[in-house]
Amino acid sequence: MLGIGVDIGGTKVRAGVVSQDGRVLERIQKPTPSSSPVAVEDVIVDCVADLRRRWTVAAVGVGAAGWVDTEQATVRFSPHLAWRNEPLRDRLVGRIDLPVIVDNDANAAAWAEYRFGAGRGSGVMVCITLGTGIGGALVIDGRVFRGQFGMAGEWGHMQVVPDGHWCACGNRGCWEQYASGNALVRDANALVSSGSPLAEALRAATRDYPLTGPDVTAVALQGDQTAAELIGDVGTWLGRGIANLAAALDPELFVVGGGVSEAGGLLLRPAIASFERSLTGRGYRPVARLALAHFRNDAGLIGAADLARHSISEPPGFLFWPRRRTPRGQRLRKFRDAFLAE
Amino acid sequence: MLGIGVDIGGTKVRAGVVSQDGRVLERIQKPTPSSSPVAVEDVIVDCVADLRRRWTVAAVGVGAAGWVDTEQATVRFSPHLAWRNEPLRDRLVGRIDLPVIVDNDANAAAWAEYRFGAGRGSGVMVCITLGTGIGGALVIDGRVFRGQFGMAGEWGHMQVVPDGHWCACGNRGCWEQYASGNALVRDANALVSSGSPLAEALRAATRDYPLTGPDVTAVALQGDQTAAELIGDVGTWLGRGIANLAAALDPELFVVGGGVSEAGGLLLRPAIASFERSLTGRGYRPVARLALAHFRNDAGLIGAADLARHSISEPPGFLFWPRRRTPRGQRLRKFRDAFLAE
Repeated sequence: MLGIGVDIGGTKVRAGVVSQDGRVLERIQKPTPSSSPVAVEDVIVDCVADLRRRWTVAAVGVGAAGWVDTEQATVRFSPHLAWRNEPLRDRLVGRIDLPVIVDNDANAAAWAEYRFGAGRGSGVMVCITLGTGIGGALVIDGRVFRGQFGMAGEWGHMQVVPDGHWCACGNRGCWEQYASGNALVRDANALVSSGSPLAEALRAATRDYPLTGPDVTAVALQGDQTAAELIGDVGTWLGRGIANLAAALDPELFVVGGGVSEAGGLLLRPAIASFERSLTGRGYRPVARLALAHFRNDAGLIGAADLARHSISEPPGFLFWPRRRTPRGQRLRKFRDAFLAE
Repeated sequence: MLGIGVDIGGTKVRAGVVSQDGRVLERIQKPTPSSSPVAVEDVIVDCVADLRRRWTVAAVGVGAAGWVDTEQATVRFSPHLAWRNEPLRDRLVGRIDLPVIVDNDANAAAWAEYRFGAGRGSGVMVCITLGTGIGGALVIDGRVFRGQFGMAGEWGHMQVVPDGHWCACGNRGCWEQYASGNALVRDANALVSSGSPLAEALRAATRDYPLTGPDVTAVALQGDQTAAELIGDVGTWLGRGIANLAAALDPELFVVGGGVSEAGGLLLRPAIASFERSLTGRGYRPVARLALAHFRNDAGLIGAADLARHSISEPPGFLFWPRRRTPRGQRLRKFRDAFLAE
C-alpha cells in the first residue's frame, strides 16, 4: 500500500510517493506560495493529482510547519505561513477523494526517523531539527507524543537566556535564537559587519549579502577557523538544550537533523561536549546517545506519508509496547495478536 | 485491598496504610537517619512491621527522593541521601514478605494527585513539587512517564540562567535554584544580612538564624510586603519554567505542590502572570490550567501505596486509553474488557 507525503516548508513544497518500507518512489517539488492559505492548498492538491496519475495510493499525509491539533486536522497557527485555525484536513478531503491527515512537520520527520531511520527500535526518542528555527518531536514506544492539545515538542521556544534575543514567537531568549540556522546567520553577518579580519573567509564567501547558513557551513567545512567557531557556538547551545531535555525526558536517543546538521562533526562535537558537561546527575545515569538524522530533505514527506498510512490501517502504537519478557508482557502480546488477527 | 506507602524525605520518613480509594487509615512518622542506607532500610522495615500489626496489607510502595530505575527497584542516585546504585527493592523484599516497589517521591506524589487529587481525569498532567528543590513528574493518560531509564521529570535541573547559581547537581543556573524553598531561603537571608530596613519583619521572625522557608511564608501571609515580594520572585520564576514545560509538553494541567505552595495566591498569582506572559504561541492555543496540589504531606505515601497496589493487581495504564467515541476506541474497549475479565 502506497502513500503520498507532502512537506510544506517555508519556501518549498515537497511531495512524494512513499512505499510501506519508507522508500520514496517519486518526488516532486514546487515553490511555497506565501500569499494565502488557499494558494498553498491548491499546490497540495496539484501535487497529489500529479502523482496519482502514475501511482495508486491509499492515503495522503501533509506535514506543515505549524501547530496542528491532536485530531491531525486543524493548523492552529503557523509562524511562517498564513494559517490561523485553518481546518486544512477537511478542506483537502473535500478536494482529494482519499483519507488525509495533517501533522506538524517535525512530528512527521521524527516519525520517518523512528520508523526507517536513525531512531529505529528506540524506546524514548527526542528529535531536534535545526533549520530556520528548531523543530522538535518526541516518540514514546512507537507513538508520537502530542501533548493534550497537539502542541508538544516546541523545544525551540523554551527560554534559555533571560532577556535574551527576541524570537518570532514573541518571547525573548528562546533556545532557537541560540541553536539554529537563524542564530548562525545572525552571528556570522554581525561578525562580517564588524569589519574584523577574522571574518575574511566569510566575507569572501558570497557577493549576495547577507550570508546564508549554507554559506557559513561551506566556509567552515573548507577549514576556516572562524566559521567553524560560529558553528561550534551553535553546537554548544545545542548541547546545553539537549542536557535540559535529558533532565526532563530522559530519552534513549537524540536525533539531530535539519540544515545546520550538514556541518556534521563541527556541530556535533561541541554539542556532545557541552551536553556531557551539562547533564544533571552525570556519572550516576545512563547517557542518551546523539545521532545525526538519517533522512535529509525527504524526512518530512516520508513521515507524513507513513503517518497517513498508519491512520487508516495500522493498530494503535501502544500495541507495540509489550516488549519486556515478563508474564504480563506475554499476556499483553497475546491480546495484541488477537487484536491484529481480528 | 490495603497498601502501605512510605515516603522517605530528607528529614522525615512518613508511612501510612492507604485504602483503595486513597484514604490514609493510619500514619506514622520517624526521623530519617542520614547515616547509612542500611539505617534508612531499618526504619522502613520497622514502620511496615509496626503498621502490619494492626492492618492486613497487600503491597508496600516506597517513594524516595532519588532517581529510581524503570523497574521500580534500584535507587541510582539520591542527592540528599546516601544511596548510590542501591538495589533497595530487593533488599526490602528480603526483609518484608510482601510485594514491594520503589519509586521517585515526585512520581508517587503526582500519582496520588492523578488518582485521587487535583489531577483526577486529566489527560496530560505535569506536577511540580516545590520543596527544598523541585520535584517533577509527568502523567500521560494514566501512566507515569519515566523516560528510558527512569529519570524523567527532573525539571528542576533544566538550566534557566547561563552561569547562574550553583546547584547540588553540579551544574549552574538550574531552575530549582530560582523557584524553590532553597531559593526563597537564600534570598531572604541575603536580604536580612544586607541590613536593609525593608527586612525588619523578616529579621523579627526568628531568633534562630538562618530563616527557614516557613518563616518567610508566615511573615508574608501576615502581610509583610518584602516577604511577599520574595515569594513573588519565586512565583515569577515558577511561571517562566511552567511556560517552558508548556512549550515542551503541552499539558492540560499543571499541579503545583510542596512546602512553598503553602503561600497560595502569593505564589500562584505571579506564577500565572509570568506563565501567561511567557507562553509561546499564546493567543493561538489552549492554555493549561494551574492548580494547587490537593494532598500536602500525605501525597508521597498515598501515591507510593497506590503504585504498589497497581503493580500487583491493576491492568497496565494503557488499557484505560480508549476514551474517544470512535470505532477504534470501541474495539479497544472490547479488548480491554476481555483482558480484565481473564
